Amino acid sequence: MTDQDTLSAEVNILGISGSLRSGSYNSALLRLAMRLAAPADVRLWRGLADVPPFNEDHEDRPPAAVTHMRSAIESADAVLIATPEYNTTVPGQLKTMLDWASRPTHRGVLVGKPTAVVGASLTPYGAQWAQQAIRGVLNACGAHVVGEPLCVAHADTAFDAEGHLHDPQSQAHLARVVGELADVPRWLYSSSAPSAG
Amino acid sequence: MTDQDTLSAEVNILGISGSLRSGSYNSALLRLAMRLAAPADVRLWRGLADVPPFNEDHEDRPPAAVTHMRSAIESADAVLIATPEYNTTVPGQLKTMLDWASRPTHRGVLVGKPTAVVGASLTPYGAQWAQQAIRGVLNACGAHVVGEPLCVAHADTAFDAEGHLHDPQSQAHLARVVGELADVPRWLYSSSAPSAG
Repeated sequence: MTDQDTLSAEVNILGISGSLRSGSYNSALLRLAMRLAAPADVRLWRGLADVPPFNEDHEDRPPAAVTHMRSAIESADAVLIATPEYNTTVPGQLKTMLDWASRPTHRGVLVGKPTAVVGASLTPYGAQWAQQAIRGVLNACGAHVVGEPLCVAHADTAFDAEGHLHDPQSQAHLARVVGELADVPRWLYSSSAPSAG
Repeated sequence: MTDQDTLSAEVNILGISGSLRSGSYNSALLRLAMRLAAPADVRLWRGLADVPPFNEDHEDRPPAAVTHMRSAIESADAVLIATPEYNTTVPGQLKTMLDWASRPTHRGVLVGKPTAVVGASLTPYGAQWAQQAIRGVLNACGAHVVGEPLCVAHADTAFDAEGHLHDPQSQAHLARVVGELADVPRWLYSSSAPSAG
């Protein structure tokens, strides 16, 4: 996005699901975000499974999957993560991706990147601790974290046949998070553009 | 270990380094533990890099590397994790291993397993938050977590040329953690053995 097309162009949001399961409720949440997000174009990233274990020895010549992941984040105006919760915290593979994305220190692709985190789980808690942990990680990565946590509980019954959330408040909450996330790059770019006076 | 050889056999501890770096200070910490551990045989596990991303779809027929990891933990009397800290918390690949090890729920290989966590980092904090996060994960996995946190700070200068810790208190602390970890299976097995009356 350039300064010039800030107010007309859609904000480009990269959706990252922390679950690799084919029937993932978190991927479903991102697909719902795609349809709700009027001022934003949400795309679902499919490269998570390809990211190799982080190894600092390979940092200077990272594997191709890492380069692709970094490019996907760099070319996005914002990032929306939807995460399950594994053993009270962040799924390992999602953390591996964030570890690679955080390097080199202070120059990672998440520095200043507008990001938001939502989550769904089968439990009554909707992945709230995983979300909290990921926000902490994103802060450590220098990301610009926005949005109120959306915890979709009892995810196996939370969606209807069309992939909408039964609970209208949760659905409005998701739309609000995406809207807030989309506003950050619009605000960042428009405030740096010359004033119209 | 069987009931019969409890009091004579060495306790078999699986050492897991959370860092894949060839010059890892956490692997160095485990190698030091091998030499300090009089009542225990500490072995360094080398399978971490092979563990694939966790995917619940593959849970019933897990990849071979997962089966090997589970066997390594099952056949160990206890587990000693030495971890770096990535972005204030657990390294992704170590978490992936723990996620696989935790499944199926309530029947994972870490249930009841004596475990301890130590850590080393370049910072003044010695991976303390990563250690704390991992203890929480281990608790969620049903492991029997023991030992006081050992935070080896400024790891690049903490070891001498022989791989010992310059600080004698830290070195004694590591020996104490290993000793405490070794005591748990000895205690568990001996308390379940017939009383000598």
